[in-house]
Amino acid sequence: MNNLLIGDTIVAPATIPGTGAISIVRISGSDCFRYADAVVQLRSGSISECAGYTIHYGEVSGLDDVLVSVFRAPHSYTGEDSVEISFHASWYIAEELVRRLMVAGCRMAQPGEFTRRAFLNGKMDLAQAEAVADLISSKTAASHKVAYNQLRGGFSTELATLRNELVEMTSLLELELDFSEEEVEFADRTRLLDLMDRTRSHVLRLADSFKYGNAVKNGVPVAIVGATNVGKSTLMNALVGEDRALVSDIAGTTRDTVEEVINLDGIPFRFIDTAGIRETDETVELMGIERTFRKISEAEIVIGMLDMSAQDSTIKSNLELMVSKVDFEKQKLVLCLNKVDLVDEKDVNKNVSTINDFVISIGKELVILKLAAKRGLGVSELCSTLSSLESHLIPNSETTFVTNIRHYESLLRTADSLADARLAITSGIPSDLVAEDLRRAISSLNQILGADLIDPETVLQNIFKNHCIGK
Amino acid sequence: MNNLLIGDTIVAPATIPGTGAISIVRISGSDCFRYADAVVQLRSGSISECAGYTIHYGEVSGLDDVLVSVFRAPHSYTGEDSVEISFHASWYIAEELVRRLMVAGCRMAQPGEFTRRAFLNGKMDLAQAEAVADLISSKTAASHKVAYNQLRGGFSTELATLRNELVEMTSLLELELDFSEEEVEFADRTRLLDLMDRTRSHVLRLADSFKYGNAVKNGVPVAIVGATNVGKSTLMNALVGEDRALVSDIAGTTRDTVEEVINLDGIPFRFIDTAGIRETDETVELMGIERTFRKISEAEIVIGMLDMSAQDSTIKSNLELMVSKVDFEKQKLVLCLNKVDLVDEKDVNKNVSTINDFVISIGKELVILKLAAKRGLGVSELCSTLSSLESHLIPNSETTFVTNIRHYESLLRTADSLADARLAITSGIPSDLVAEDLRRAISSLNQILGADLIDPETVLQNIFKNHCIGK
Repeated sequence: MNNLLIGDTIVAPATIPGTGAISIVRISGSDCFRYADAVVQLRSGSISECAGYTIHYGEVSGLDDVLVSVFRAPHSYTGEDSVEISFHASWYIAEELVRRLMVAGCRMAQPGEFTRRAFLNGKMDLAQAEAVADLISSKTAASHKVAYNQLRGGFSTELATLRNELVEMTSLLELELDFSEEEVEFADRTRLLDLMDRTRSHVLRLADSFKYGNAVKNGVPVAIVGATNVGKSTLMNALVGEDRALVSDIAGTTRDTVEEVINLDGIPFRFIDTAGIRETDETVELMGIERTFRKISEAEIVIGMLDMSAQDSTIKSNLELMVSKVDFEKQKLVLCLNKVDLVDEKDVNKNVSTINDFVISIGKELVILKLAAKRGLGVSELCSTLSSLESHLIPNSETTFVTNIRHYESLLRTADSLADARLAITSGIPSDLVAEDLRRAISSLNQILGADLIDPETVLQNIFKNHCIGK
Repeated sequence: MNNLLIGDTIVAPATIPGTGAISIVRISGSDCFRYADAVVQLRSGSISECAGYTIHYGEVSGLDDVLVSVFRAPHSYTGEDSVEISFHASWYIAEELVRRLMVAGCRMAQPGEFTRRAFLNGKMDLAQAEAVADLISSKTAASHKVAYNQLRGGFSTELATLRNELVEMTSLLELELDFSEEEVEFADRTRLLDLMDRTRSHVLRLADSFKYGNAVKNGVPVAIVGATNVGKSTLMNALVGEDRALVSDIAGTTRDTVEEVINLDGIPFRFIDTAGIRETDETVELMGIERTFRKISEAEIVIGMLDMSAQDSTIKSNLELMVSKVDFEKQKLVLCLNKVDLVDEKDVNKNVSTINDFVISIGKELVILKLAAKRGLGVSELCSTLSSLESHLIPNSETTFVTNIRHYESLLRTADSLADARLAITSGIPSDLVAEDLRRAISSLNQILGADLIDPETVLQNIFKNHCIGK
């Protein structure tokens, strides 16, 4: 921590005032204590003289009595000298306090600037810095767990291990170049290929997790599909009603779209209402149905609804249409037999066995549930089914999830470079070109962590650290 | 501070999570440190061992890295042992943290319970405790100043001085009762009456300030009045537009009523749009106009709008109607001559001089402004006029404002009791009955401060403190 980057002094509210009891304004940077002293009078002494990790009672003249928390570099969030001023949570006080600190010399912080400074000062890597925003916006146990693991460095450690292995490989190849006239082969080609394959499959596994990571962060997409009037909106309302308090508690949850995010056993599900589907020749209707089909293809789970009070032939044709639109390789279909309360139990059972026969005949795996959405019957069974289908997303899992598209793309680039390197080795291409592919792979991983791009010096340092060759 | 009331341990968020960078949960009470230790692991040692006014880095297992601020009784907001835990401002973390603290033994705090404990532990009196909520909700320099003065004890000190004078009076009267067989008159009746009158007029002055204090807190009520289509709503929009950012920034500002609160030079003005007025016989229309007249009577300032493009006779009859509805003893009338852009300057000037003549003839003081509300002309002049009319509300004034209806009513009761006491003395009614009136006056003042109701013991203590009679 000797090379701290101490910036100019920035100020920003760290909480939104106007509600709650306390609000906080924080400042960070080279003149932090001096500017704070210009605005806050302590009962005795000055903030500049206070030890780090101490709290002091003070007064902002004519404005408020405040508590000042003092943090001294490098032991602060940003790594710089920092001060947090906590006051009665009024808008007026917050505005006036920030204004006075700016008059004293502070500059208004840009979005994320405190965290950017923490990154620049090595308090966290880029993946960890990115996790801060995810952690704050996390609304369920699952999304919290993923962001928290990333913030704590779990993801970074995993990537660093992969990178170190690649650096070692590259070191050995670079070493060969130094001794090229002697035709030494420090790097055993078989071992190299094996290491490359293992690393690549690890990288691809991480990239694959993006699908789940994204689901955890934004909700598992669930399309509710069926003919017009089968009860899609009724089911949607029943689902939202199950957990309306939570949904409306969350700031930013959009309620004016046909999507609703609902927390089931700690996993967020994003329910998508769709337009009714049916066989038709009319152009306009076809367009709406096309959109529904596209939504089906984007879903992780499809809830296919069938109206048990409809005619047998209608049920059958709707079932066939839905089954034809689901990609069973990637998607799960949950069949909901709705309006069972409107039909004789005998007729329902007859229909269920027809449907079962059909399902067996096509050889696909799907769940069948009976529902009376309007009366709320079967809704909680549907919820349990959904959460058990996605139980691999449950927070206790130790798997790393990639949630950031920037990370996902970097991982794919890493895998590509590793594939190139493999091909280069098996084609007998010279070591320096193989090393170049590996360096690109390392660079892609480093982009996730925000580390400096790999340079020959790093590779050399690694050689001399691990391989004393007595020269 | 020896008799601290240490309650059971309560917990509550002190900030609203979900936005901002940091959120805080605070706990206070007898087992505060023990419960915090059960939930937060410090890097070394335990919270129970930490000194007051220090900050410690800790971890809430699997949830977040936190900072713990430790406050030891009596040096805390509540006067009890207290802990503030600050964490990444996510809803999920806040809920889970509060849940874990409740599992550990904390109870969810009731609204205002932290401040109630601060009052019970003598950290502040009742008037100060009430000022906390006002301070947090203050949106302008003026309302902030009033709340801040009250929180800092300015109001309380003023009341305490008045109360102490009353207690002294009562003491002297009570002393006479002890010596009643000797017919001593410790309390000089003339001096007593004088003191009573001065105290009563001070109390009434404070009660009077409620009108202003209320204006400062809720906005000076300004009714915009005039005939249909004179441009009332246009003016309202132009006024709001002048300061739209501020208005929409403030949470809780109701935008769906015809009232708008606007901050002009630090003073809040509450603009009230009204239905058009005109002479009519129709019952329904009369009812609407009656409501407008009631709103006029509730306003501090009336903006009377006249349409310069109307016929001279219409302008004159509307002017007369408005003037007849304003109580010039209590209210200020600002005449706005609107739509001056639609009329020849010559005609406007002719109308202005007719209006001026009329105003002079009725001998009332009012302001006349020219306006073209639709084009925004004259609006900023109107704003300056309004803020200068209410310049006595400008925050630098050292006057105490009563903003709380509870205080206002207690002050009126105090004044009534003092009037009773005065009458009792001048009617030659026995001292013990006079003392009773005074005790009621003291009790009313004490209700504002939340002090114990006056008891004979207090009066006696006062006697022996101030009047050693050598017995």
